[in-house]
Amino acid sequence: MADNTILIKNALILNPENPISGKKDVLIKNDLIQDIDENIDENNVDKVIDADNKILLPGFVNTHTHLSMTLFRGLADDLSLDEWLNDNIWPMEANLNGNYCYIGALLGAVELIKSGTTTFSDMYFYMEDVAKAVEESGIRAVLSYGMIDFGIEEKRIAEIEQNMNLFKNCHDTADGRIKVFFGPHSPYTASEELLREVRKLADENNIKIHIHVSETQKEIDDVSAEKGLRPFEYLDSIGFLGPDVICAHSVWLSDKEIEIIKKNDVKVSHNPCSNMKLASGIAPVSKLLENDICVAIGTDGASSNNNLDIIEELKIASLLQKVSTLDPKVLTSDDAIAMGTINGARALGLDDEIGSVEVGKKADLILIDTNSANMTPDSSKLSSNVIYSANGSNVDTTICNGQILMENKKLTTLDEEEIYKKARIAIDELKKAL
Amino acid sequence: MADNTILIKNALILNPENPISGKKDVLIKNDLIQDIDENIDENNVDKVIDADNKILLPGFVNTHTHLSMTLFRGLADDLSLDEWLNDNIWPMEANLNGNYCYIGALLGAVELIKSGTTTFSDMYFYMEDVAKAVEESGIRAVLSYGMIDFGIEEKRIAEIEQNMNLFKNCHDTADGRIKVFFGPHSPYTASEELLREVRKLADENNIKIHIHVSETQKEIDDVSAEKGLRPFEYLDSIGFLGPDVICAHSVWLSDKEIEIIKKNDVKVSHNPCSNMKLASGIAPVSKLLENDICVAIGTDGASSNNNLDIIEELKIASLLQKVSTLDPKVLTSDDAIAMGTINGARALGLDDEIGSVEVGKKADLILIDTNSANMTPDSSKLSSNVIYSANGSNVDTTICNGQILMENKKLTTLDEEEIYKKARIAIDELKKAL
Repeated sequence: MADNTILIKNALILNPENPISGKKDVLIKNDLIQDIDENIDENNVDKVIDADNKILLPGFVNTHTHLSMTLFRGLADDLSLDEWLNDNIWPMEANLNGNYCYIGALLGAVELIKSGTTTFSDMYFYMEDVAKAVEESGIRAVLSYGMIDFGIEEKRIAEIEQNMNLFKNCHDTADGRIKVFFGPHSPYTASEELLREVRKLADENNIKIHIHVSETQKEIDDVSAEKGLRPFEYLDSIGFLGPDVICAHSVWLSDKEIEIIKKNDVKVSHNPCSNMKLASGIAPVSKLLENDICVAIGTDGASSNNNLDIIEELKIASLLQKVSTLDPKVLTSDDAIAMGTINGARALGLDDEIGSVEVGKKADLILIDTNSANMTPDSSKLSSNVIYSANGSNVDTTICNGQILMENKKLTTLDEEEIYKKARIAIDELKKAL
Repeated sequence: MADNTILIKNALILNPENPISGKKDVLIKNDLIQDIDENIDENNVDKVIDADNKILLPGFVNTHTHLSMTLFRGLADDLSLDEWLNDNIWPMEANLNGNYCYIGALLGAVELIKSGTTTFSDMYFYMEDVAKAVEESGIRAVLSYGMIDFGIEEKRIAEIEQNMNLFKNCHDTADGRIKVFFGPHSPYTASEELLREVRKLADENNIKIHIHVSETQKEIDDVSAEKGLRPFEYLDSIGFLGPDVICAHSVWLSDKEIEIIKKNDVKVSHNPCSNMKLASGIAPVSKLLENDICVAIGTDGASSNNNLDIIEELKIASLLQKVSTLDPKVLTSDDAIAMGTINGARALGLDDEIGSVEVGKKADLILIDTNSANMTPDSSKLSSNVIYSANGSNVDTTICNGQILMENKKLTTLDEEEIYKKARIAIDELKKAL
């Protein structure tokens, strides 16, 4: 097959950690970034994109979501995690099937692509159907099956089998865009036996782990009451933690737990909107960053957010740290850009492939149009203009694995009108089934 | 002159406080809402707007901003209020002139109209030039001149004269769209004499007052050291407070001060993004609301935000209250909608004219397009979909005083490309002049 090449001309590049100054051209060959230079020859290139007035940056990495739950956007608000989950979400989830999860994932994929996310890490059910949506949309994903056993052995065996099957069927599929992790739901819904078994299988098969830990004060109280240890102490005590574990939320952390996270090189996915909306609490992110812990960003599901806009999420993450520490210098716009890109890649073990604009890495790139009311005049600092002024609607072009998924705000792989219609029908049916 | 009529067909109406259920038509005659009903006859109407898939709501009211400072977007970030103001903003402001403030105000007006704000309350300099931008853009505004005397008598006299001249020249101009308030900057930059004189002139001339109060802990410390009283205690002691006073920020409040605010029926403009970004603190908004104090919303200047998106501001206001009180039920999406519309109107003394969708009120209306990735499926509750899922980019149509200022995301009164160009030149010149 002939090579496919795309040349992005005259882009201001916003790269985490290693700044690239001045306007540059970026040459994409097939799935990879082939060259970054001035005046790259545009002859013999299949497609040229003019990046005048645009900022080029790595596609955002959303490290914690439940994409099919996009169907449940706005289903129930202004409630505690307990009431929201037990009285509203779980009853709806009881009637889910593969087709609903597929539609929800497509709907979520539309929103992710439109707002500049090229990689998401998901934990949910019917994950083969989510994989189908990933395959079709062209986005990159880490998929895990949310395992819950509540201590029942039969259930435990079935749940682990589900996640292992997902690994066998989907890992490294879709041109390598799909990876599969284990998804034990949390230390309060997955038994110690399940967690130990997952750790063993993870080591044997080189599979990473995605889990919710320390989301609410209630979880701390419950785990402490049952185990006599706080959640991270407990997970450490059973040998569960390691550099291949990414923990969502991680809101309520003692100093000792921060040491445990650091010692084990555990990765943290910070989900500020969800934590604020459900009044779960404020994660000590600046303290984690001070300790050189890898903190990435996640939106959680759209049903507790209620959108998947990573730029909004990063702005809120930054502002929340500043006001909660009363220090305006913490979590700067540069820190936020890193959190949304390279830290996300590291958290998922994909930093060899994605997370920065670098020759040899996958061409997961987005363009943000600064010629808009909320981004003019161009701030002196690109990261400030993206994090503090913009939102997802300023993203103009989204490229993943060298394929253009959106150009001039028009999707290329998905029919959004059709997906909106299907999503409306799906949620209507699910509401009627209650 | 013949009447001008606009008919908005089949709108879902999101009205604060008094819900209107089912799809309705809204008839606008000249500057007023003439009728709200089903199946209004579209014959003899000058223009028909199809509101299918759209939510109609009152235009948002931004009760505290410095519109010309939109020029300073992203000028300096990740700094404390003191460093930001003294080392960055004030040196730039020293070189401002009427033309720069006019351009900055036009740029801000573009952003306000695009994100659904129809009324803003401004405090700054060269306010006659801001008035010119208001006149041309078609937006509604309350303008005040930011008076600072630092205790110097000559300066005080000149400052008061400036604000009085603004009142004489601009109050009730632009078809009544412009009102003028007094703008004593704050209790730490305006002397007691200035505040007393403003109170006297306000009573004599029936002019309302816009002031910054209790933004930072430092201000509390400074005022307490000088006056032996906290800021609101001090303002109460000199008879400054009343129902015609709107106070921006109001972050650091003792219980006694909350009583003082309540007793005097003082209005509060909450500015969460600015307070978070500058690490000023978290205003006790849910406590104020519990006390039936009128709390409205404001973005503050774009330079400490860094945008003018009221929907984003309201989402953050709601989420911040939930997490800071650890109660997910406070500041619901309905409360947020009221804060952004009718409370804003009340705070500015304009609730007879604007702030709700009601026959006889001014036609200040916006349409939000829900047929978009971040608002599908339509939540069961309109307010949830607007506050938690949307942002300003979902606003499709903006009408102020019966005039369409934006339709299908295209501005009708302002040339945005031209304004962006002028704004870029202006900030370049101002940077060079440093």
